[in-house]
Formats: sequence, C-alpha cells, structure tokens
Amino acid sequence: MTTLDDVRPLDATDPLAGFRERFSIPDGLIYLDGNSLGALPKATSGRVEAVVQREWGEDLIRAWNSHDWISAPRRLGNKIARLIGADPGEVIAGESTSVNIFKALCAALQLAPERSVILSETGNFPTDAYMMEGLAALSGGRIRQVLVERDAIDATLTTDVAALLLTHTHYKSGQLHDMKALTARAHEMGIAVIWDLSHSAGAMQVELNDCQADFAVGCGYKYLNGGPGAPAFLFVAKRHQDRVFPVLSGWLGHARPFDFDDRYEPASGIDRFQCGTPAIIGLAALDCGLDIMLDADMAAIRAKSQSLGDLFIDLVEDRLDGFQLRSPRAAAGRGSQVSFAHEHGYAIMQALIERGVIGDFRAPDILRFGFTPLYVGYEDVWNAVDILVDVMQSGVWQEPRFNIRSAVT
Amino acid sequence: MTTLDDVRPLDATDPLAGFRERFSIPDGLIYLDGNSLGALPKATSGRVEAVVQREWGEDLIRAWNSHDWISAPRRLGNKIARLIGADPGEVIAGESTSVNIFKALCAALQLAPERSVILSETGNFPTDAYMMEGLAALSGGRIRQVLVERDAIDATLTTDVAALLLTHTHYKSGQLHDMKALTARAHEMGIAVIWDLSHSAGAMQVELNDCQADFAVGCGYKYLNGGPGAPAFLFVAKRHQDRVFPVLSGWLGHARPFDFDDRYEPASGIDRFQCGTPAIIGLAALDCGLDIMLDADMAAIRAKSQSLGDLFIDLVEDRLDGFQLRSPRAAAGRGSQVSFAHEHGYAIMQALIERGVIGDFRAPDILRFGFTPLYVGYEDVWNAVDILVDVMQSGVWQEPRFNIRSAVT
Repeated sequence: MTTLDDVRPLDATDPLAGFRERFSIPDGLIYLDGNSLGALPKATSGRVEAVVQREWGEDLIRAWNSHDWISAPRRLGNKIARLIGADPGEVIAGESTSVNIFKALCAALQLAPERSVILSETGNFPTDAYMMEGLAALSGGRIRQVLVERDAIDATLTTDVAALLLTHTHYKSGQLHDMKALTARAHEMGIAVIWDLSHSAGAMQVELNDCQADFAVGCGYKYLNGGPGAPAFLFVAKRHQDRVFPVLSGWLGHARPFDFDDRYEPASGIDRFQCGTPAIIGLAALDCGLDIMLDADMAAIRAKSQSLGDLFIDLVEDRLDGFQLRSPRAAAGRGSQVSFAHEHGYAIMQALIERGVIGDFRAPDILRFGFTPLYVGYEDVWNAVDILVDVMQSGVWQEPRFNIRSAVT
Repeated sequence: MTTLDDVRPLDATDPLAGFRERFSIPDGLIYLDGNSLGALPKATSGRVEAVVQREWGEDLIRAWNSHDWISAPRRLGNKIARLIGADPGEVIAGESTSVNIFKALCAALQLAPERSVILSETGNFPTDAYMMEGLAALSGGRIRQVLVERDAIDATLTTDVAALLLTHTHYKSGQLHDMKALTARAHEMGIAVIWDLSHSAGAMQVELNDCQADFAVGCGYKYLNGGPGAPAFLFVAKRHQDRVFPVLSGWLGHARPFDFDDRYEPASGIDRFQCGTPAIIGLAALDCGLDIMLDADMAAIRAKSQSLGDLFIDLVEDRLDGFQLRSPRAAAGRGSQVSFAHEHGYAIMQALIERGVIGDFRAPDILRFGFTPLYVGYEDVWNAVDILVDVMQSGVWQEPRFNIRSAVT
C-alpha cells in the first residue's frame, strides 16, 4: 500500500511545484475544488486594486483609451486562445458561459439554415441544455432541442442536425469526449460542433483548430482562476466569423460603435461577437489567472493531473469501502477530476469540508474531487484520503448537522 | 452676469455637499462625465479587496454560502428597486444592459404572441436598436423592428406592435420622455413598454410601478457608480414574471439549479431572469455605489442636477458664441446632462479634457456634459465654463493634436 513516504518524492521532483507560491491558499486547507472555483492568484488583489484606484479612480472615462480597456476582451481572448489551440483573433473574453452558448448556437444555426435540430447529451451540464431549450422556445417550433444518451450521439448525427453541443470534460464524471473524432464525424454530416470547455480549458491540452472545431465556450473561474463569476469566453473559428450575424448584436460588436448609427453593421472578425460594455474589473482579475497559466507547460499540467487522479483513485480503493468510482479509471479518458459515488455522499462531503478537505457534491450521490496541478501536490492527495479514512472510521459524518443542505451544494 | 461669488453660496448651502467626501476624485479635475462612467466611491477599493482576499481567497467555494454570493443579484436588485420605484423582487442585477434588453424584448413578445413589431425611435442609444435588430434577424422575418422619429411614436402605437423600447433620458440630448403618459398610451393599444433607464437611474426619481411600466433595464456604471462595465439590471413587473419563459434560460434561473435536471423549470418570480453565474467582484463594486445612492435623497439629487444644468446653460450662453444648445432648455424636460453642438466639438472637447474638464463627445458635433450632484458642485460648473472660455479665446483647440481620434471618443 502507498505510504506518505512514497508520495513525498513526487512533490520533490514535481516540475510545477513552484507554481503553488503564486496562489494564496489558506494554511491547512486541502483544496480539491478548483474545478468549481479556482484559487486566488497572489497577483490578483494588487492588480484589481490598481484597476479600481488608479485606472478607474484617477483616469475615469479616459481609461478606456489610456489603459486600453476597450481592447481587454480581445487581449484576454488572445491569451485564452493559446491555452486551447486557437489562433489570435478567434477568442473573445466576456459575459457568462451561458450567454456565450446562446451566441454559439445562434451562429451555428446560421451555417445550416435549413436544419432544425440542436443536439446534446442527457446529463450534460444543465446550462448547456437549458440555453438550447430557451432558443428552441423562442423559435416557436422551428428549432428542436434533442438530448440523447452519450452512446447514442453517433447514431443521431443526421442531416437534420444543425449543431452538436457537447461538454468536452463531463462536469460530474470527468469523462472526456474524443474531440477530434466526434468533430470529424459531425462534419461528415454537415453539423457544426460547439465544444463547452468549462472543465477542460487550463486543465489539459485542447487543440480546437487541430480538431477543426467550429465554436467553443468556456468558463473563466475554474481552471483559469479568474475569480467568482469571472468573464467567460467564446471561440469562433476564423472561417465562420464573417459568415454569421451575431444575434446578440450589442453596440460593441458594431464595426464603428462610436459612430452611434441606427443600423447595426457587424465588425469583422471575432469583434462582432462582443455585445455590451465589458466588465473591466472582472477581466483584470481573469487576466492574472491567465498569466499564470501561460507560464506553465500544459503537457506538464496534464501529466501531473493524471498522476494526482490515479493516486487518489488507488488510495481510496485501497483504504475505503463503499465508494464506487464514477470517473473513467484510465487517466487518458478523464479530465482533471475524480468522482466517487457513495449513498451518504452529501453528509460525507460536509464532514470532509469541516476537516479542511474541500471537494464538492453533485446530486444525487457524487463526491467530486478536482486536481489542479498548479496548487495541489501529491502529499495533499495523500492527506485528503487519510482524512477521508478518518471521517469514515470515526462515523462523524453521521451527525445530523452534516445533512443540513445549504443554498449552494 | 453670474460671477464666482454668486455661485459659492450655492455650494455652502447644498444639502448634498457632504457626499463628495465619499468619492475619490483626483485633485484639480472637474469631472462632468459621470453620465458615461461614474466616479469611484472611496468604499469600493476596500470592499473589492475584501471580496477578493477574504471571501474568495480564504473561503473559496464555500463563500457562495458563507458570504451569500448566491443572493447578490437579488440583494442588489432590491437596492436598485428602491431607486427606480419598483418593489422588492422585481429587479435583478447582472449581465450587460444589452443582454438585459434582449431578455426584456423576448419577454414582452410573449405577452402578445400574435404581434410582430418591436418599436423604438431613431437616434436611440444604438445598443437598444441593435439588440432589436438581432432578435428580428433571429426570428427569420416573424419579428419586425421599426424605428420612427420621436414625434411619430404616438401614431405608430398600433395593434401590431408587441413592445415599445425607449430610453427614458436620451443619451445625447438628455431629453426626457413622459414615462407615465407614454406607458398609458401604449397600454391602451395592448403594447408592453420597456424603459431603458441607463441615463435616469440614480439621476432622478423614477416611478416604474406608479407608471405601470412592464419592463426596464439600466446601467450600473453611470449614475450608480458601479465601475467600468459594472453589472446592469433588469426590472420585470411582478404581474408579468411568472407569465414568461426566460429565453436566456441559464442554470441560475432554474427553480432548483443544484438538482442539475436535464429539463429547465423556471424559478418563480424575478429569479427566473438570472442566467449564468453572477459576476461577484463586479457586483461587490456596484454595491458600494448603490449604498451611497440609497443614503441620498433622490428629490435633492434631482433639484441640484437641474440647478447645475441651468447654471451651465446660462454661463455658456452668456460667455460664449458658436455653441448651440441641444438639450431641452427647461430643466423639467431634460435629464442630468447638457449637450451643446459646435462644429469643432471634437477638438474643443479634447482641449478641455487636457485642461482637466472632463466631458465627452458624441458624433457628429455634440459636446456632452453630465452633472452628477453627489460629487459635482456649483463652483465646478463655474470653473468648467471659465476654462472653456479660456480654451476658446486662446485658440488652443485648433492645434492639430486635438483632432487625433482615439479608440473611444
């Protein structure tokens, strides 16, 4: 059985170990929930203060020029592009993942205007399905949302499907889709593919252009460490950009927004997918998270993420009973998280959190643990399982207080 | 002619004079652009730092409960409601004004599904018109956007119109619509009215419910002093809330978001108009702006705003030639800004800004000056005009460098 002495050398030789110093993590906490809300980069607070005090406070309206706020969505988009295998000018940062999904769906439908189906899988992250449902409702029957089980996707790629929307790394199980193969199969049937990278961007190599992806969206507050409710991002492949009318056609997507014309004329390129005035303070925080990611080697992140997950699975299965693995066992098939089912999952997670091991719970019975290689080490994993063993052996999780549901679970 | 000695007593007896201390305004600057980007409240930096360092940094994912982040959109919405004559549970804070316009348009159309026209006026703030245009494009011809001149609105209120979208205070001229009368006339024809309050909220009394308004949107970064790109807001009258399916049906508008169901079931009330994960850092900054507004008496704000505008008009017209008033002369008919046209408006504004008087320029020839009574005084107005007189007399504005257009003008 693996011991603490076995894992310590792994941290000692970890090429990413130095990155932990760039994050502010409370002492004694083992944070395995960076897949839900990433940790705080040490640079963020100072940067946000500078934007608030110096840029806004001193330059006021002039800061749109003097600090180039106006380019922030594109500037950050270009940084994100480097993390997901996109080219400069293909990604824009801003708004929520949900709103960006809506934009991508509207764009994809324009590429195949005679088609009526938008397709996803059951059990996808709900906002993906819900945004599809809203668009279908708005269409008054013209657009139809179809959700099928994962193993039925292939058979449902038919010529009435306009767009396939899938989350690359499943939010609950961590299971990966084969982006390249699925995109190719969809393209054979003339279907545009929208990849939701919320649990992939910053966690592993993503090669959107190598996969010929059409659209992608993703989240700024998970592996990109942009802070709570950080701006999200939208990728539109260069070849599609000037072919679609951005339905959320806000003033900052206009070719000349400061002409204040009555008629909308979309900007060329990715700029047309901007909508309202960008959230400058939130973008500044996200920028700090991106800068750390760009300093790290994504192959090293992926390799460590897989090792951490493998170690966690081995230790849980060696030392505990009653936990059923709900993530792919093979590291190549899963993202940067590991989920176990347990019939008392909710209470166990609450007891773990009280002991300083932060994961999260996903209904009905999933304990979810995220491994963020920039600030989680091998010893953390060992200690997390050791505490879980203690929680289970002591029976503390059976105390009624651990079953009180809070607003966000 | 009014002299500096005439205006100083007005500041000395100003009941709002004490509020300036609550803002961080650079020494020597006369800031007359709070209608574009409001000034920085002194409380904001500390509050944002607390959210970043303590709430995010220390509590991490737990802060959604421990600091009640999850309620922030409703909590701030309820504060905004008090500023615009709405009831608790009728306003939600979040996203951009543009996205909220889209939500309001989609909702209004559902109240009259057999109607096809969405109506606004020419010269409205562009994003209002552009968002209508996008929705019309998406509908494939079912929805038709119509823009008419202001004096033709009445005659265009016909039974094929589903929604009338108007900006209460015109962004360029400051001219006010009669909210109560126009809403009543629209209702006689069964038309829902969407009021864009971007240049009204925080600048004057707004009585949405007294006017029987249906929907409203507005901006957080102008008179509400929420910071660059601050979250915006959406008002939906209680009577409509449960009758419409929120087309931007993101996961946080679900009745039970943490059940992660495949099917969307809208929350009851205003909550269903939430979409993605709220921008917590931006909301914290906005909250500081709102807290100041709630401490001030809105009638006093409006009275001072009108006096400042009157003084500015009188001084410009007394002391300068070549400037044509483009705002209503009667204070009751305009918002909190005054616009003058001048054929060399752009260069004059740039020269003024260099001299520390910040207004802005709106194409083709408008110099726009905003009067924000919480941090602008009568002496500021006198000094601003005095500097404008000096700029004109010296001819400095004719230097070529003042005609170099920057990204944001």
